[in-house]
Amino acid sequence: MIQITVIQIDNYGPWTVTPNPRRESDLQALQSRLYADLNLMFGAHKGLVFYTRFDNLIAITNGIDLITHKRIQESIRNRYPFTVSMAIASAETPYEAQKLATETLQEYGSAQDENRKEVLDVANELVVDGYVQIAHIDINNITGTFTDIVSAYDTYINVNKVKLYLMEELLKHKALLFFIGGDNFMAPSNGMDEEDFLKIFDKIKNKYNIELKAGIGIGKTAEDASNLADIGLEKIRMKLVNKNICVLRQEDIIEQNLSTKKLCELQR
Amino acid sequence: MIQITVIQIDNYGPWTVTPNPRRESDLQALQSRLYADLNLMFGAHKGLVFYTRFDNLIAITNGIDLITHKRIQESIRNRYPFTVSMAIASAETPYEAQKLATETLQEYGSAQDENRKEVLDVANELVVDGYVQIAHIDINNITGTFTDIVSAYDTYINVNKVKLYLMEELLKHKALLFFIGGDNFMAPSNGMDEEDFLKIFDKIKNKYNIELKAGIGIGKTAEDASNLADIGLEKIRMKLVNKNICVLRQEDIIEQNLSTKKLCELQR
Amino acid sequence: MIQITVIQIDNYGPWTVTPNPRRESDLQALQSRLYADLNLMFGAHKGLVFYTRFDNLIAITNGIDLITHKRIQESIRNRYPFTVSMAIASAETPYEAQKLATETLQEYGSAQDENRKEVLDVANELVVDGYVQIAHIDINNITGTFTDIVSAYDTYINVNKVKLYLMEELLKHKALLFFIGGDNFMAPSNGMDEEDFLKIFDKIKNKYNIELKAGIGIGKTAEDASNLADIGLEKIRMKLVNKNICVLRQEDIIEQNLSTKKLCELQR
Amino acid sequence: MIQITVIQIDNYGPWTVTPNPRRESDLQALQSRLYADLNLMFGAHKGLVFYTRFDNLIAITNGIDLITHKRIQESIRNRYPFTVSMAIASAETPYEAQKLATETLQEYGSAQDENRKEVLDVANELVVDGYVQIAHIDINNITGTFTDIVSAYDTYINVNKVKLYLMEELLKHKALLFFIGGDNFMAPSNGMDEEDFLKIFDKIKNKYNIELKAGIGIGKTAEDASNLADIGLEKIRMKLVNKNICVLRQEDIIEQNLSTKKLCELQR
Ligand SMILES: Nc1nc2c(ncn2[C@@H]2O[C@H](COP(=O)(O)OP(=O)(O)OP(=O)(O)O)[C@@H](O)[C@H]2O)c(=O)[nH]1
Ligand SMILES: Nc1nc2c(ncn2[C@@H]2O[C@H](COP(=O)(O)OP(=O)(O)OP(=O)(O)O)[C@@H](O)[C@H]2O)c(=O)[nH]1
Ligand SMILES: Nc1nc2c(ncn2[C@@H]2O[C@H](COP(=O)(O)OP(=O)(O)OP(=O)(O)O)[C@@H](O)[C@H]2O)c(=O)[nH]1
Ligand SMILES: Nc1nc2c(ncn2[C@@H]2O[C@H](COP(=O)(O)OP(=O)(O)OP(=O)(O)O)[C@@H](O)[C@H]2O)c(=O)[nH]1
Ligand SMILES: [Ca+2]
Ligand SMILES: [Ca+2]
Ligand SMILES: [Ca+2]
Ligand SMILES: [Ca+2]
Repeated sequence: MIQITVIQIDNYGPWTVTPNPRRESDLQALQSRLYADLNLMFGAHKGLVFYTRFDNLIAITNGIDLITHKRIQESIRNRYPFTVSMAIASAETPYEAQKLATETLQEYGSAQDENRKEVLDVANELVVDGYVQIAHIDINNITGTFTDIVSAYDTYINVNKVKLYLMEELLKHKALLFFIGGDNFMAPSNGMDEEDFLKIFDKIKNKYNIELKAGIGIGKTAEDASNLADIGLEKIRMKLVNKNICVLRQEDIIEQNLSTKKLCELQR
Repeated sequence: MIQITVIQIDNYGPWTVTPNPRRESDLQALQSRLYADLNLMFGAHKGLVFYTRFDNLIAITNGIDLITHKRIQESIRNRYPFTVSMAIASAETPYEAQKLATETLQEYGSAQDENRKEVLDVANELVVDGYVQIAHIDINNITGTFTDIVSAYDTYINVNKVKLYLMEELLKHKALLFFIGGDNFMAPSNGMDEEDFLKIFDKIKNKYNIELKAGIGIGKTAEDASNLADIGLEKIRMKLVNKNICVLRQEDIIEQNLSTKKLCELQR
Repeated sequence: MIQITVIQIDNYGPWTVTPNPRRESDLQALQSRLYADLNLMFGAHKGLVFYTRFDNLIAITNGIDLITHKRIQESIRNRYPFTVSMAIASAETPYEAQKLATETLQEYGSAQDENRKEVLDVANELVVDGYVQIAHIDINNITGTFTDIVSAYDTYINVNKVKLYLMEELLKHKALLFFIGGDNFMAPSNGMDEEDFLKIFDKIKNKYNIELKAGIGIGKTAEDASNLADIGLEKIRMKLVNKNICVLRQEDIIEQNLSTKKLCELQR
Repeated sequence: MIQITVIQIDNYGPWTVTPNPRRESDLQALQSRLYADLNLMFGAHKGLVFYTRFDNLIAITNGIDLITHKRIQESIRNRYPFTVSMAIASAETPYEAQKLATETLQEYGSAQDENRKEVLDVANELVVDGYVQIAHIDINNITGTFTDIVSAYDTYINVNKVKLYLMEELLKHKALLFFIGGDNFMAPSNGMDEEDFLKIFDKIKNKYNIELKAGIGIGKTAEDASNLADIGLEKIRMKLVNKNICVLRQEDIIEQNLSTKKLCELQR
């Protein structure tokens, strides 16, 4: 079970144009700082937030209780010109969890209902013995094949094509996909296996001639999972693995007292 | 002529994993604060920055001179764990300008060359009598048709589909497109006219059943243009215009001493 | 027992002038953001940080373990152009605790030793069953007596006089004092009682003709204590108390199941 | 003539306790970020802001016009849960200028008048041909004499004693003094000369056995002046000057085409 929190700025659209449209550079600064703060505050408790649409954000929050959510909600109210609502849900897949969370939020009224403020609710229940699976997906040598040779915007378009394709393919597995900067994506993907990813990467190789690799981490919290995913990615980069996927499980490392050195290595 | 600055974090990829992969919530906070700061600092001089890939950013900088760029570059060096390089270029279209700027950056070496640091250069020349055209594109009633009724992620995917489609269509006109949050996009689009946009919106209506509207501002700086675009958008929202496009030109307002009230209105 | 953490930027002096002196507005932004971040990150775990000298900060950290300190230290390293060292200590009084913590830091070398980086150590032990006492001290009607009638700088000087006097008087009780903005001070003051404060306030009344009031909170963490102190202050402001001190204890409220309404009230 | 802007958060006291007292770690983060932002935004135009009381701030703004002030005021409104008022004034001395500015603000009503919002006014006139003199004052070897050998709080108290003493002495010359972190102070001090400072430093040496040095910069803007002050301080540190004061004038450097190398040096 993965636990997802959907975060929504309350009645934000009308605010951006009241009494007159607000300067766009200010709105960009405001939104991206909100995102930074949410990551620091959820990150302090091993959660991870994705910016999504900036006014609607999706966070992985396994291990984070209701009172911590409430404290974060208060901290936003204390420092921003708006408030946020939050709904928490858990499910076998990330897609299901975010769907349940959204539905809970929607029950309280419209995102642009001026009377709906600071909702905080749990759709079903907080996860106790769940786990988070995150794939950290990265383009091979984007620097040499794009950044250093084509224009900044052409690289950007290509990254967006890969992104949308990945979103659509992963959705078939009820997994989510978020861009995290550069040529990097993170996919909360409980339930998917190595083969599922390899098949998608093959398709992308054929369609766009872009090669992907992914470290996949499975851990108790978003931070545990993403750290393991990062380590897996480095193993592939250092050619300690002879394929483009490396899966690392927190329980293997803890229970079998294995260092990550031994896992996911080349079999010689 | 539009003036574009391409901003690139120096040798950022290697830094993110040295000596070990850094916590992802920290990287997200770091990147989005860089973006916020760049918007505040360029915004102080009427520029506007788009986050693009977060490690490679594109800014509209008409009216901003080299020394101001240098001061911003220094301010980043003084407050961040990395430095940034910048190249400035001008052209008839935004696509051409960013291409020239990227090429100038590339001449100095790879984005991951550890010896290439704090490049600051101008591809051709700074714009003196240019103008900026920005279309602020927005989905009609996303709240009622998506946000309040489908899941947060489903809304997000739809916004991404529209985004990629817009990117591809606009590119044919050498215009750029950036997501700015919610259901909003900004298109630096010097040279495009009303008809060009209406045709693209029609295609999107047919393909995705999503209706778009756009305020288009034409002004001396990114801020002037985006402010006018916002005002145009509000005129459409308030049904003061009987189509989904409203173009406002700074020179019309200044020279003919017209208030925006009179422009882009319903002909009755 | 109160737990104090002393935080020090590593080798900061030399950095500020290498290779040339850095722009002062940047340094002010950098330092105050570090302070903001430390408050958000320690605050996420109910701690409270005071800016002190900005390069050397003092935090109350009851209830915050070593691993959380380490995570905060890493987060600074990941996002700032410098690193920080931290030493934790506990004692009966705040003064003793910060002294022990400082000594531990000093054992590792000079604040400007370029080889001393990211020290993290505990002087004696982390507090388990301790408590925090915080007095939130405020000047009566500073708005009417200063802000609205004398110059901004004259008000400022007067606040500084009161501050230094309070620092010296409180030190006799091994309590600390920090300015928190406006006309407000916070004094970590384990061991001091109502009478101690009233006497000091009297002296200040006589010497500077400035009247002070204080809410005093006693709780398990810095946040619990400071919240109670704030509530106490409000009770005085609303004249629910007939003196300038109101002490509130977390244990009274929890154990006796009393609401704060009943405590620290006017005896009629 | 020096130009000073007094910045005041509107009706801030009541806000901090409505409907209930707000978490202090949040307020500290909020206030210090406001300070950081003001420094970045005024800094973008070569101004410099001092945190003063955090709710009332004093800035040096030579060269910054009214419209730029207005844009900064709007940017705060767009991103913070409160608004700020500003008044600008110019005078021969910094003390006089801040006094005039405060008076202008006071004419509009109380700092806690809920109807007084976003005042922006000029007391007399904006400075055209003025100059800024800033002394950057620093304690000799605080690391060896305090930081590394006594407790963090004892160092802090000593810095505060020096601060208050400096404030009182400088006020006799109608100069202001602000703490800028570490063992550093900045004194806007138009009209004071080398001798004035040396006498005050002597008194402090006798009274507290603490030695001070100061780089004094005289330039068109706060940034010019503070950069020159920093350079002067480095010259003293590197023993290129045989006293504890080094004055550098922007006009000498520009007009006589002198590099700073030649100025303020040891006469051999
Ligand atoms: N958010 C995030 N971005 C990263 C991370 N690692 C790299 N990036 C981004 O990815 C960009 C490209 O770096 P790399 O992936 O190392 O470069 P590459 O040329 O593709 O090299 P290889 O992936 O090693 O083939 C960087 O500029 C960063 O923006 C990470 O851990 N998190
Ligand atoms: N960056 C930015 N985002 C905006 C702006 N205006 C609205 N938004 C975003 O758009 C979202 C949706 O708001 P609206 O577009 O007002 O809502 P809507 O339901 O589509 O309504 P209409 O557009 O009026 O049909 C908001 O939550 C914001 O995230 C703006 O000026 N700038
Ligand atoms: N950090 C912090 N500052 C506060 C708090 N409450 C008030 N202040 C500051 O204190 C300043 C003055 O506000 P008040 O103390 O309410 O005003 P006053 O005129 O002294 O009124 P009384 O204290 O009610 O007599 C505000 O501008 C704030 O800067 C608080 O809880 N925390
Ligand atoms: N704001 C600011 N603070 C500074 C600057 N330079 C140094 N500091 C602060 O001063 C502290 C002490 O550094 P130094 O003054 O270099 O150390 P010192 O031991 O006194 O050495 P000397 O001054 O060279 O005798 C640093 O930790 C910083 O907090 C500066 O330019 N601006
Ligand atoms: Ca890559
Ligand atoms: Ca819309
Ligand atoms: Ca008060
Ligand atoms: Ca010093």
